[in-house]
Amino acid sequence: MPHHAGTEIYNDYPPPLTPEQEGYLVQTVKNWVVEHALTVRPSTAIVPEETNPANVLATSAPVTLFPSPFPKACFEQARSLQQVYNELYASIASDEQWLEHIMKELIEVDDFLANLWKIHLSVKEEGYVQDLSLGMFRSDYMLHTAEDAPVSLRQVEFNTISSSFGGLACKVAEMHTHLATFPAAKHPIAYPPHPLFANSTDKSPINTTGHPPKNEAVSTLVAGLAAAHTAYGPSRSDPPLQTCILFLVQDTERNVFDQLALSTHLYDHHHIPSFRLPTSKILAYTSIPSNDTNPARPLIYTPPSSPSTPYEVTVVYFRALYAPTEYNTPTSWAARHHLERSAAIKCPSILLHLAGSKKVQQVLTSRPPDADHLKAFLPNHPETALDSLRSTFAPQYSLSASQYSASSEPEGIRLALDEKTAANHVLKPQREGGGNNIYRTQIPPFLNSIPRDQWKQYILMELIHPPAVAKNTVLRSDGQVVSGNVISELGIFGTCLWRNTPGSTVPETLHNTEGGYLLRTKGKDSDEGGVAAGFSSLDSLILHEEA
Amino acid sequence: MPHHAGTEIYNDYPPPLTPEQEGYLVQTVKNWVVEHALTVRPSTAIVPEETNPANVLATSAPVTLFPSPFPKACFEQARSLQQVYNELYASIASDEQWLEHIMKELIEVDDFLANLWKIHLSVKEEGYVQDLSLGMFRSDYMLHTAEDAPVSLRQVEFNTISSSFGGLACKVAEMHTHLATFPAAKHPIAYPPHPLFANSTDKSPINTTGHPPKNEAVSTLVAGLAAAHTAYGPSRSDPPLQTCILFLVQDTERNVFDQLALSTHLYDHHHIPSFRLPTSKILAYTSIPSNDTNPARPLIYTPPSSPSTPYEVTVVYFRALYAPTEYNTPTSWAARHHLERSAAIKCPSILLHLAGSKKVQQVLTSRPPDADHLKAFLPNHPETALDSLRSTFAPQYSLSASQYSASSEPEGIRLALDEKTAANHVLKPQREGGGNNIYRTQIPPFLNSIPRDQWKQYILMELIHPPAVAKNTVLRSDGQVVSGNVISELGIFGTCLWRNTPGSTVPETLHNTEGGYLLRTKGKDSDEGGVAAGFSSLDSLILHEEA
Repeated sequence: MPHHAGTEIYNDYPPPLTPEQEGYLVQTVKNWVVEHALTVRPSTAIVPEETNPANVLATSAPVTLFPSPFPKACFEQARSLQQVYNELYASIASDEQWLEHIMKELIEVDDFLANLWKIHLSVKEEGYVQDLSLGMFRSDYMLHTAEDAPVSLRQVEFNTISSSFGGLACKVAEMHTHLATFPAAKHPIAYPPHPLFANSTDKSPINTTGHPPKNEAVSTLVAGLAAAHTAYGPSRSDPPLQTCILFLVQDTERNVFDQLALSTHLYDHHHIPSFRLPTSKILAYTSIPSNDTNPARPLIYTPPSSPSTPYEVTVVYFRALYAPTEYNTPTSWAARHHLERSAAIKCPSILLHLAGSKKVQQVLTSRPPDADHLKAFLPNHPETALDSLRSTFAPQYSLSASQYSASSEPEGIRLALDEKTAANHVLKPQREGGGNNIYRTQIPPFLNSIPRDQWKQYILMELIHPPAVAKNTVLRSDGQVVSGNVISELGIFGTCLWRNTPGSTVPETLHNTEGGYLLRTKGKDSDEGGVAAGFSSLDSLILHEEA
Repeated sequence: MPHHAGTEIYNDYPPPLTPEQEGYLVQTVKNWVVEHALTVRPSTAIVPEETNPANVLATSAPVTLFPSPFPKACFEQARSLQQVYNELYASIASDEQWLEHIMKELIEVDDFLANLWKIHLSVKEEGYVQDLSLGMFRSDYMLHTAEDAPVSLRQVEFNTISSSFGGLACKVAEMHTHLATFPAAKHPIAYPPHPLFANSTDKSPINTTGHPPKNEAVSTLVAGLAAAHTAYGPSRSDPPLQTCILFLVQDTERNVFDQLALSTHLYDHHHIPSFRLPTSKILAYTSIPSNDTNPARPLIYTPPSSPSTPYEVTVVYFRALYAPTEYNTPTSWAARHHLERSAAIKCPSILLHLAGSKKVQQVLTSRPPDADHLKAFLPNHPETALDSLRSTFAPQYSLSASQYSASSEPEGIRLALDEKTAANHVLKPQREGGGNNIYRTQIPPFLNSIPRDQWKQYILMELIHPPAVAKNTVLRSDGQVVSGNVISELGIFGTCLWRNTPGSTVPETLHNTEGGYLLRTKGKDSDEGGVAAGFSSLDSLILHEEA
């Protein structure tokens, strides 16, 4: 194994446990997660449907027993970039022409993207009645190690729709902090001594607080929702109605307690009521007056349990309808169109949803002498800020003849088809939602097995090389405890509210914040992500200075 | 059906629900309970052990969907009596001679009581090293209706050990308040209009807040533990140790989240660490130095996960070892003896445990010209206070020749054997823990089926007649929703810390508080209680003035 700089910290972490220590730690975690609703509804793989017909059971979210060490400088860089990233994606979503140009080729071959684009065009033709957009973002990174270079951040993706796990991530940080400090930081009874904790028995060379930094994801995300709700202003109905926020959710959502952490905080701290609306009920429980009756097109939510108290919706927060598989009924697309044409602030709008495509992420990596999109979208930022942003880009390539590349040879195709270069890459589909990636030497045979005109639906990205020796132990949702080598992915949350002025592609930013983080940790042998799917676990981090 | 005064309030309560309303209400409750840990571990009847081998699942505690109406005057009377009751039981537990006299006959025939008494005598002989006692009490009542009389309170029992459900009861009150006031008290979307809610569309004749009173059970109970911890004073070990409170729990406890509500509050608000100790581990994880080494007999807890940081125990809080069935290993009694002789403050001591016998409750009902025990134990209280206490006593009788009755004829035996009078009574065993009661006309054949010298193990109590037409709907732990006629039992929580002075039977009270309530509601067709057993549900109450 080659030497990688900056990985020494992982060598003896987490500290080994005696059977008594593991027994206590696991039992404490099993109780803590339920006491604090760090939970999910169990999948049918864990509890068969006949045992749980009323869906009343809950189980632990998959969680790590220890926080993972993370370089402080990388964490702070990720945080420092978030507001710049927020502004970047607000600018992209505000530039319809640029987006159309980038997406054009994809729209031709991808029904999902084509349908989204059609809805945008249709609403544009009728005329948008809402010039505010809300983004609740999560920028995801992995640590990248290279020989003779310090460990660095590489962006995996930027989420513009349904950025989840803010609610549960706060609780994991709280749990790890409890475990590291109860009953006293110098003598926690759950964690054996280690230089990363405050209970170290050595003179420790590591500068650490001994527990995870406070996670502000919930208050940050909810403040974004509240800012949009306030910016919406008074009811546009006649007579005026009470206002609310809608959480658009999947009919069979298992990650409900993550979402409730937000809606409860929204009500407790901002006094804004919200309701959960399953996607199958959008057309049944919401309506828009005809343009003749009320050209403002307020979105009216009629609670089925209280039809006499209709509400006007200020913000539709999408925790659903991000993936093609969710548009599986005859009215799914009509429902999305219905929401898009309403006066409610969409989180996200169709254009912002599309801005999250991996194609956009890839195009942004192009540099002079090719186009310099970053500079164009962020004219007011110094070159050092843009360089810091660029330093997080993994090399990635289009598999079509690039519209923006000065070179005539599509480099991505060359790298993907050669087994030797393919071995250092991953092939990703454009769409949201994770999964379906093709890895390494499986790329050439995969591409050769599909028609060449479908290649442009994929992006080729250089593989990220996370620290090789990180370890952790996980409590899975079925109660099993497993240990092993792990890979972590850091997400930074941010929100942005902006106004688009007709005829201008420059958004007017009303609210732009960064706050809170997610660490997802998965077994090193699994290439796929997605905590809810059970492949990876919720984690938090202990910051350390690089040695 | 005869007319009972004061029951009109129940006629149209709870308000009927449309299928949409019930669907919304049930779904909201199913989410709320998990989000706020109003949960229990599921029984194997709900989830078979093979589906839940790691015991990681949780389910809703059985809860009512609506708070139950309750007469305000009765609630306030119960509250006003609690501190007097606290003092009464502190006095009883401080009068060893009186207790011995009362229990003598029972001890002769009941191994459980005999073993408890033996431990007390043994520790007394060695010499108690702790003169402080802590009581965490719950006095339980039902509403009693009689023809042409206002509805009144009748005490069911007074719990001196393991008074449970304070943690979950607070959450039920919070949940019902949420349901009655979200998103606005005038327009809750979960509850249809009703005169008992603030959303009534009538001019309501009922004076009500529209939601349950705030439940202070957790802060009250925890303040009692904290007062005892503080009163214990500094470590008696040499060298001094960190101090803690022990929660003594059953090895297979399902009601763990009720207990965690207390231990978490204790740490968050009083900075006092506590540890959960299963009864099977008492002798393994706790120790007392020999009298030669340290005659103060501090109780040392060595966390199995951190043997290098032993703690000195200030308070042992019993959430176990209250029932004979729990003393089922060769060392169970040795463990109880071990705790009793230690310097830790016991909650409860053996004498306080015994003071909770139903025999004591029955003897307290005797009045002049028989003995006036109330007056003797509470010499400083005016007769009006004692009369208020007495008004809550249900008529009850010993089944032995009473030591305290001036009459030679045991009235209890006469009432129990006559089928006509038996029909208005319940036969209760002396021991704690509920269950095993014999009702009505089954009493004579039952008594005739057991040896006459065992009769004195039972108390005969006149049946309480709760309002006949109360209704509610329950979400059970298996997710089923059931509606029907119900009976409710009100518990009032209180704590008392006192010091016994050698040679005196008058306790010096250091802390005496009342606060918080429990309402348990069960189907009218079930004679037995016990929420954890699944027969009854956790409830809260909406106070109303009598019509």
